[in-house]
Amino acid sequence: MARPPEGAFRGGDGPWFLVNASPDARQQLEALTDGNLDGVRAAPIAGVLLTDGEIDHTAGLLLLRESTTPVRVYGEAGVERALREGYPVLSMLERYCGLIWQTLESERAQPLDGSSLTVEPFDVGGDAPRYLEGSGVDLTASGFVFRDRVGGGVLTYVPGLARLDDATLARFAGSDLVLVDGTFWRDDELAMFGISGRSARDMGHLPLSGPGGTLEALSGLKRPRKALVHINNTNPILLEDSPERAEVVRAGVEVAYDGLEVEL
Amino acid sequence: MARPPEGAFRGGDGPWFLVNASPDARQQLEALTDGNLDGVRAAPIAGVLLTDGEIDHTAGLLLLRESTTPVRVYGEAGVERALREGYPVLSMLERYCGLIWQTLESERAQPLDGSSLTVEPFDVGGDAPRYLEGSGVDLTASGFVFRDRVGGGVLTYVPGLARLDDATLARFAGSDLVLVDGTFWRDDELAMFGISGRSARDMGHLPLSGPGGTLEALSGLKRPRKALVHINNTNPILLEDSPERAEVVRAGVEVAYDGLEVEL
Repeated sequence: MARPPEGAFRGGDGPWFLVNASPDARQQLEALTDGNLDGVRAAPIAGVLLTDGEIDHTAGLLLLRESTTPVRVYGEAGVERALREGYPVLSMLERYCGLIWQTLESERAQPLDGSSLTVEPFDVGGDAPRYLEGSGVDLTASGFVFRDRVGGGVLTYVPGLARLDDATLARFAGSDLVLVDGTFWRDDELAMFGISGRSARDMGHLPLSGPGGTLEALSGLKRPRKALVHINNTNPILLEDSPERAEVVRAGVEVAYDGLEVEL
Repeated sequence: MARPPEGAFRGGDGPWFLVNASPDARQQLEALTDGNLDGVRAAPIAGVLLTDGEIDHTAGLLLLRESTTPVRVYGEAGVERALREGYPVLSMLERYCGLIWQTLESERAQPLDGSSLTVEPFDVGGDAPRYLEGSGVDLTASGFVFRDRVGGGVLTYVPGLARLDDATLARFAGSDLVLVDGTFWRDDELAMFGISGRSARDMGHLPLSGPGGTLEALSGLKRPRKALVHINNTNPILLEDSPERAEVVRAGVEVAYDGLEVEL
């Protein structure tokens, strides 16, 4: 079997679903097809689920346009509007391979076609993409709870987490595995490196460290296995011998790596 | 100095210009910044020149949106319309880092800002991108002639060549270096591999082999150094010991490789 890329999920031996399609999605897709992407013009995935309308999460949809079958894409109604009116990748896909759009509703589980999985989106805060300014489209980001109706496993995937409230913590607590936004260690991380004046919170990412940070919240959870995803290359937890990594380990949290494969 | 990626040009020690911005442009840009792209939010290039509005040539523009300065983009008026009305990456860039659009006119040399180079686009045929169907925007692809007003060198770059007429051959003949579309060896190459029913010509690429093919035309040119670019992974000339590669070599033509650096 092919190695799953970050953000690919399936129930049992069912088809793969990708959460978000980054500009690098070609590598993600190649991981699922053992590198034979050019010989496989049918999409190697059964569908793409979108947490939001960010360019970095949706630009890769256009890489699927040579598919010989319509591409199935799931997301909330606001995401569809964003990707038709602001950054019209859905309208464009329709003209190439065709599109089957499936609207998700927040806090409502919906079965994924051909799979034993259901997906339930929930609000994790954040701002609408900047390209929507003035469009009247309002949009926050979602996390997804996947439940396997056959195997019974529950996985919560939150690649972007702007706000961590009690409802979200309760979802984490009821999961077998949580894969959570580990983008930044500090709120002022990009300023420290002179990269940007914007804080982690400005960019829709709660930092890991400090009071109210994600690590503190995750460390209190008993049931789920906990792993960090979407880690920025400025984040010191990527260094195996860093004190920050040691703090993550002490909190009972893992650092997910490329190709991490988990069976529930 | 950083290694130039395919499609990057400069005059003397002047700034780099990129022709087209593919979805993989991150790698192209990293090649120009020795991998330090994340520390350099100012674009490492002085501008992007677009041969057409194809998704594979323009999706990478959005990777430049975190630039701290407006991004300078050059192309013909039809390209601008395509990228505002069909696939609005120019309108989007404006909302992020800002955009300085510079309209090029076919068969008219225009200086590139801050550089000793001029660029002159010329028509090389081909169809408008499929996302423009029904939009009323008509568009063919361009090749570019670069002339160095200081060094005197003339370079013609044609990453897509749908039609090879006498005017284009005359441009090639008057160049020191021509970098020409080597996408497909045969017209029915994708069908042979069972990848697609579309021919090379359907996709806007004259095949290299056979009567009327690009190789025959290039072999007759005396002055320029000739190299093939944009080679598809189905093309047998990529195999160093293939008879097709031998035929390319016999025609006095080179196969450009990643990071090829040429000084005129």
